[in-house]
Amino acid sequence: MARTVIFNKTGGPEVLEVVDKDVPAPKAGEVQIRVKAMGLNRAEVMFRTGNYVTEPRFPAIIGYEASGLIEALGPDVSGFAVGDAVSVIPCFMLGEYGLHGELVNAPAFGVVKNPPNVSWEEAAATWMMFTTAYGALVDIGQLAKGDTVLIRAASSSVGLAAIQIVNMLGGTPIALTRHSNKSEELLQHGAKHVIATEEQDLVKEVGKITNGKGARLAFDPVGGPYVATILEALSDLGVFFQYGALDTTPLAVPVMSLLGKDLTVRGYQLFEITRDQERLERAKAFISKGLADDLLKPVIAKVFKLEDISEAHRFMESNAQIGKIVVVP
Amino acid sequence: MARTVIFNKTGGPEVLEVVDKDVPAPKAGEVQIRVKAMGLNRAEVMFRTGNYVTEPRFPAIIGYEASGLIEALGPDVSGFAVGDAVSVIPCFMLGEYGLHGELVNAPAFGVVKNPPNVSWEEAAATWMMFTTAYGALVDIGQLAKGDTVLIRAASSSVGLAAIQIVNMLGGTPIALTRHSNKSEELLQHGAKHVIATEEQDLVKEVGKITNGKGARLAFDPVGGPYVATILEALSDLGVFFQYGALDTTPLAVPVMSLLGKDLTVRGYQLFEITRDQERLERAKAFISKGLADDLLKPVIAKVFKLEDISEAHRFMESNAQIGKIVVVP
Repeated sequence: MARTVIFNKTGGPEVLEVVDKDVPAPKAGEVQIRVKAMGLNRAEVMFRTGNYVTEPRFPAIIGYEASGLIEALGPDVSGFAVGDAVSVIPCFMLGEYGLHGELVNAPAFGVVKNPPNVSWEEAAATWMMFTTAYGALVDIGQLAKGDTVLIRAASSSVGLAAIQIVNMLGGTPIALTRHSNKSEELLQHGAKHVIATEEQDLVKEVGKITNGKGARLAFDPVGGPYVATILEALSDLGVFFQYGALDTTPLAVPVMSLLGKDLTVRGYQLFEITRDQERLERAKAFISKGLADDLLKPVIAKVFKLEDISEAHRFMESNAQIGKIVVVP
Repeated sequence: MARTVIFNKTGGPEVLEVVDKDVPAPKAGEVQIRVKAMGLNRAEVMFRTGNYVTEPRFPAIIGYEASGLIEALGPDVSGFAVGDAVSVIPCFMLGEYGLHGELVNAPAFGVVKNPPNVSWEEAAATWMMFTTAYGALVDIGQLAKGDTVLIRAASSSVGLAAIQIVNMLGGTPIALTRHSNKSEELLQHGAKHVIATEEQDLVKEVGKITNGKGARLAFDPVGGPYVATILEALSDLGVFFQYGALDTTPLAVPVMSLLGKDLTVRGYQLFEITRDQERLERAKAFISKGLADDLLKPVIAKVFKLEDISEAHRFMESNAQIGKIVVVP
């Protein structure tokens, strides 16, 4: 028996419960982890409210990210031993696994050994944010020195990771945030410019920064009607990444911009990287090097206790946080 | 003085006039061509009606495609001689040059020598159609053996060129056409399957053909609301090319498809290839080889006389044609 987060119906943060639950032995290709820290993810809010790509089956387990000690190995798992300090990079659909609990099973494929000298909280916060940003901007977008990158929802953990990665490679990160109240903190976290999208004219501001050229890359977890404005702010051959769908309405893509600038609008899920062993290994190497060189560092907004999981979800939905929300047993 | 197509206001085919006009000497980087045949292009209809990416300045010259004999060389032009039989690949905006006339100037950059043993009409019809389809599907889309490709407006010259290129590389071309009345001819022109989009369920039909996998590439000059349906019919990591905007309303991109399948929506203009000397040379080599091997062959719908240019535009707008409309002086 282990305390585990579940929910029995879709709805607000209050549907989450922490219950004692039997945890089955790990199956082939799985490891069992004694969890020390968990990361919170926007996708969990979508899953909890019934807006995720798959529907929950009740009682539904939940949770994408965790760090801890390996407690048991399923058949056909190599490269790990009981007692290893590890973290899980999301490489499954919510509902297949749920990592928010004291004792969880996870696919070994997405498990990575923790770098030395990081806390459990930092380890739990690291992989999702950096792998997501790396996959779009570096693996697919071929981010290079001199590139200007528009980062929407920049105070999210993935947004902050994107800022760090753009700086690491010599680009110019422009943080997009709805209101200017987070500007100062975003500059402190490495943004070269901050544009408050509900207060400023994005296209005009990006034009000023880039001498009229526009930004080469954009990275957006929101979607919806404002995407049209972001596309207007891109350069010729610009690439727009949609990596989340906080707004599930169709993107309205202005066809004359798309055509006139040969733009790319790219849907991107982390799985594209984490389900491909070769690309995942390159991601791990890039991020490990960035951590070792102190150029990448996870930003933790706040730490909650497991029994306060509803409170943690509520905090995430408040959009007040800057960085990763972490939960500990 | 040379007979030249111009128009003095935007509007229907009747705004086009054939007038005697002085043709200036070619400037630096330009060649002057005694035109033997001209190709008609959808972009000219958009330009004529005021829906092109640039506005016409009156009196406006017009025309993207022509073949003929070099009559004079401007300064700083090498690789060509007076008397060379050449064609022009569009590498400029309409309004900058106009190739519909008896004697025209064109940028040497986009001029290509005609392969041996092709008629003037075939030469005028070749380059736009094959370079456009090649650029999207091969240069960018990395078309490979086994790929299934959805080709919208398949009876257009570029659509037919796409069918031939997909066959040349061992893929499966699926022609999309609004009504089934063109099906038989499209099958004769190399389509492996024809789907009548106003009569059949595209997603279901593509599912049957691809065993539920979906098509890897789509190639569309139309745009508009039906794009959402085409995106639903793509496979994981599918790539949709928008290479024209016959419908200028924004594309409605269903975000869950975009994300769930890691799709790419790519704006594409031929200029991306023709303005890049290296990529243009690769295109010329690919197409010349296809022509020489008899795997590519331009399809000519109908030949008009220059004085009937309005009639030729009207025929293009009727959508009755299969292949390229050609005009001769």
